[in-house]
Amino acid sequence: MSFAVDPAFEAASRPAAEWPLSHVRLQDDARFPWLILIPRLPGLREIEDLSAEDRAVLMQEILRAGDLIRALGEQASRPVEKLNVAALGNVTPQLHVHVIGRRSDDAVWPDPVWGRGAPQPHGAAELDAALALISSRG
Amino acid sequence: MSFAVDPAFEAASRPAAEWPLSHVRLQDDARFPWLILIPRLPGLREIEDLSAEDRAVLMQEILRAGDLIRALGEQASRPVEKLNVAALGNVTPQLHVHVIGRRSDDAVWPDPVWGRGAPQPHGAAELDAALALISSRG
Repeated sequence: MSFAVDPAFEAASRPAAEWPLSHVRLQDDARFPWLILIPRLPGLREIEDLSAEDRAVLMQEILRAGDLIRALGEQASRPVEKLNVAALGNVTPQLHVHVIGRRSDDAVWPDPVWGRGAPQPHGAAELDAALALISSRG
Repeated sequence: MSFAVDPAFEAASRPAAEWPLSHVRLQDDARFPWLILIPRLPGLREIEDLSAEDRAVLMQEILRAGDLIRALGEQASRPVEKLNVAALGNVTPQLHVHVIGRRSDDAVWPDPVWGRGAPQPHGAAELDAALALISSRG
C-alpha cells in the first residue's frame, strides 16, 4: 500500500509544501490561516500509528506550522491571537493535523472552526500570496 | 508565578491523575470518554511554550491518554472508534489538550464535541468507576 492523499482533502484545500514527514495543505478558507499536515505514510489513522521517531517529527512540524500560521496572519494584516491544533478525523479518517490561527474577532470565535459557518475561498491573488509565503519558508 | 488549574475547568471536569507533566482531568460528560491534560507549569498558552523535552513528554501523555480513553470506552461497553486530540483554548487559554473517544453512534458524530448538545453528567457510580480505572492505570 502506498501513500495517497484522501481525495476528500482536494476540494477544500491546496497542496502547499512537502516537509520531512508531512504533506502540507493550505485550507482554502480566507476566514482563518489554516494548514493541514498529512504524514506521508500509508494506512495511518491515529497519532499512535506513527513510530516514536515520526511522532517527534510531527511535533516539530506542528510548531513549524504554527510559526507559518502566525506569518500568514501577519501577511493578511490579521495577527493570530491563539493557535488551534487538532487531530480529529471523524469525517476523513486519514491521519491529519489541523493548525489554525484564531482571533477574537474571527467569524466563529470562540467556537471551533469545523462545521461552523460557510468557508470563504481565497481570492486568486490572496491564495498565490499565501502559497508563496509558505514556499519561501521552505 | 506558580501553577494553578484555571477555575473554568472545575465546573465541568474532575481531577483524575497526576502524570509526569500533566494534571489529568476527566470531563464530566457521559456522552464521551474524555480526558484533559493540563501541563503543570505556569503561564503556558501554546504548545510552543513548552520546552522540547516537555513537548516530548506531552506527546507520550497524549498516547497514554488515548490508551485510557479506549479502556474507558470498553468499561462503558462503548468501544472507541476514533480518537479526537485537540489543543484549542479559545475559551480557556491555559494550555490543555483534549483526548476524546468517538463513535459513529455518539451524540454529535461526526461533529467535534465542543459546544454541541448538552453535557450529560456521569452518575455517581459511573464517575467512581471511571476515576478508579484511571487510578488503576497509574
